[in-house]
Amino acid sequence: MADLSEDVSLIGSSEAGPRYWRDWNDDYGAPAPVARPRTPAALVEVVRRLSKLHIPMVAQGGMSGLAGGGAPEAGEVVVSTELLRQIEDVDVFSGTMTVQSGVTLQAVQEEAERHGLFYPVDLGSRGSCTLGGNIASNAGGNRVLQYGMTRASILGLEVVLPDGTLISRLSQVVKDNAGYDLKHIFIGSEGTLGIVTRAVLRLQPLPRERVTVALGCARLEQVLKALVAARRSFGPALTSFEVMWRDFHSFVTRELGIGRDPFNGDAEFVVILEISCFDSDADRDRARIEDALAHMSEDLGTDQVVIAQSLKDAAEIWRIRDASGEVARMLGEYLSFDISIPTSRLTHVLGVIEAGLQDIDPGLRKVTYGHLGDGNLHLLVACTAEFIEPVERLVYGAIAGIGGSISAEHGIGLSRRTALASALPRAEIEAMRRIKAALDPNNLFSPGRVLDMARALSH
Amino acid sequence: MADLSEDVSLIGSSEAGPRYWRDWNDDYGAPAPVARPRTPAALVEVVRRLSKLHIPMVAQGGMSGLAGGGAPEAGEVVVSTELLRQIEDVDVFSGTMTVQSGVTLQAVQEEAERHGLFYPVDLGSRGSCTLGGNIASNAGGNRVLQYGMTRASILGLEVVLPDGTLISRLSQVVKDNAGYDLKHIFIGSEGTLGIVTRAVLRLQPLPRERVTVALGCARLEQVLKALVAARRSFGPALTSFEVMWRDFHSFVTRELGIGRDPFNGDAEFVVILEISCFDSDADRDRARIEDALAHMSEDLGTDQVVIAQSLKDAAEIWRIRDASGEVARMLGEYLSFDISIPTSRLTHVLGVIEAGLQDIDPGLRKVTYGHLGDGNLHLLVACTAEFIEPVERLVYGAIAGIGGSISAEHGIGLSRRTALASALPRAEIEAMRRIKAALDPNNLFSPGRVLDMARALSH
Repeated sequence: MADLSEDVSLIGSSEAGPRYWRDWNDDYGAPAPVARPRTPAALVEVVRRLSKLHIPMVAQGGMSGLAGGGAPEAGEVVVSTELLRQIEDVDVFSGTMTVQSGVTLQAVQEEAERHGLFYPVDLGSRGSCTLGGNIASNAGGNRVLQYGMTRASILGLEVVLPDGTLISRLSQVVKDNAGYDLKHIFIGSEGTLGIVTRAVLRLQPLPRERVTVALGCARLEQVLKALVAARRSFGPALTSFEVMWRDFHSFVTRELGIGRDPFNGDAEFVVILEISCFDSDADRDRARIEDALAHMSEDLGTDQVVIAQSLKDAAEIWRIRDASGEVARMLGEYLSFDISIPTSRLTHVLGVIEAGLQDIDPGLRKVTYGHLGDGNLHLLVACTAEFIEPVERLVYGAIAGIGGSISAEHGIGLSRRTALASALPRAEIEAMRRIKAALDPNNLFSPGRVLDMARALSH
Repeated sequence: MADLSEDVSLIGSSEAGPRYWRDWNDDYGAPAPVARPRTPAALVEVVRRLSKLHIPMVAQGGMSGLAGGGAPEAGEVVVSTELLRQIEDVDVFSGTMTVQSGVTLQAVQEEAERHGLFYPVDLGSRGSCTLGGNIASNAGGNRVLQYGMTRASILGLEVVLPDGTLISRLSQVVKDNAGYDLKHIFIGSEGTLGIVTRAVLRLQPLPRERVTVALGCARLEQVLKALVAARRSFGPALTSFEVMWRDFHSFVTRELGIGRDPFNGDAEFVVILEISCFDSDADRDRARIEDALAHMSEDLGTDQVVIAQSLKDAAEIWRIRDASGEVARMLGEYLSFDISIPTSRLTHVLGVIEAGLQDIDPGLRKVTYGHLGDGNLHLLVACTAEFIEPVERLVYGAIAGIGGSISAEHGIGLSRRTALASALPRAEIEAMRRIKAALDPNNLFSPGRVLDMARALSH
């Protein structure tokens, strides 16, 4: 490939608009030149050439990240996957799809359904986020409870290393213990170790129907009991268990006027359950769900149970949950936490956080919601600059040493690098640095994201 | 820890019997001294001291491996986890169990059930294999179709590195994107990168019942259609889909006289399905299963369907499948393949292998069975030394470049290292070596297993 001009579309840094240097959070980024390869092979060649010149690179997908991972800094070149949009193969018998890394999540979902199959990862940004970005960030979403994070849906991966070496393991099988499973090193490494060119996705059987249920609870203990009961009653058919605190659902339905509160403000917590149905007899399946819910509501002592009777009904309920973006916008300046907490510790940890916020400033507004089935909580705290440090110290302190995580699904990027360095033991950070140095000795891929290698090298 | 004599039980190499130097395959190993730490901290101290002296170590669990990964060679010290048998915690709300690495799989399964929960990984060697060994080998088994390999059931991991550094990330949550997910580097690395001291396991809801079904098929195409149909009909409730070729099931039921063939020799293929039930109304659940099977058998054109009516019935069917150990013993000298094949390629690949075996020697006996739901096939070929090379070349050649694997679940260890080096592109082996060198620069943990580092260093 002597001349790349046909295979790569280049945009100069002065022409590349903020679309190429701002992610969703809009906190980082500087204008940078953009290379947009038209084929996976051209992407490899771009990396090889930049690597020879020791020019640092940042891989870029749909730019819907929330941690500054895809925003370029001065001196870096953006390697964009946006022209790698080909779905290369669907294998209905094996239940796999092979895609280029710039394909959007929504395109994958739709293509799977066209073949009577199902790609279970789902996020609000499905229309713009790419599979390459999903893989780099090990994206989570609403169905992790049953189907796992993106990691669990990736069978094969093709990545280019920072020196231009191509690692192509386009495995189509679930069971593959032939040597170290390198794909798991790249998945979730946020573009710091390799850039994805292709992936083989694992497709699932498509449910005949998905039933949405809203459940009202008065206390957090009741919500946690409902989770245990729902898992017991539905087993793997329970694909979502989302919880909205009053500070969230009332904000959405009353202040923003979005959606309709199924319990008219009477529930402290609104839980959304999604149950997958495979029975050919829809009435029998419905009866099973109704029986289980009747048992659950009796045990829990709540009669606040609404089963969506139509897709429109279900969409109304989900609209409330999906309004998190609008909520964030309305808050103005805010801190966003994306934490995981073992469910057995949730009541205690939230008590500590609530009391602590009161101590810092009783006027601080917080909004709480999350994928509680996985212990993943999103917590937004509206606050101005002077409160950032004490609020971060409070929240990260409350979850230290309890087996949770300071970043459940949004990743580290630039925005949580300092928090990561304080939250993890030095030995663990050091092991991560060894991996980074082994695969990217010249620190060319997304330097400074996730880990501070400069500091490591100067030690 | 100045004096380790209380915390570590030592056995000299002349006293340590073959139990400490032979794994299940019995092909490798030499007498070696054995250190058996009584606590995780003592294991770390053992590694630290041996590391300082540059003495190579081999981690050892239940010695039920099939690739020579746990068998010591001359000059090595065995670090045995067999005294680390404590189940440290069960958290019913979060659905997690924290164990030391020497706990057996069966102990974990039983402890989970005592709490109304379920640890889904299951293998024939459950009574002797340890969680540490399961993690090191990323063990598979009969329920991968729904619950994944061992990797999918590990939330947190504590490992000691070859230099004695302890990496303790005992996460209890599914969602944890805080930095590189180091546990995935250690899982499946067969003891070459770290030794597991503790792990946090993910427990699942316990099904009310598991229904076992035997299905008879005349042709492989029919089996593959049945797989697609069963996944569609049962969704995630389909937890096993095991297939036995006639060369296997007839061997077991007729020659060995084990179990009872549900179709009296009339079926070319016997498929075992396991379906998990969560409905509180057992009759309704049974009706759902019967309806789905009736549809399936009509579509497939087979009336060979038997639903186990009791636990005893189910055990009779599973006994045939579980007799693979006895089959292997009866074969005398044999080659054992543990390969993965995308199901869409299965008919073609098996055709190539069958024709090739005929060409090599029409007298070669083969036995075929496997976890077909995952594309994982076990193939035993009875053959004497002169046929080893052509048969290996045939089988590995037939699955080259089709997105399968030369080792689905048994790993590489010593026995498949050469096969791995020929099957994978050089770039991939080189990337694995970089990881190994980054975490084990002095090549002290299980040297020579999985990768030939000596060759790498001399290049």
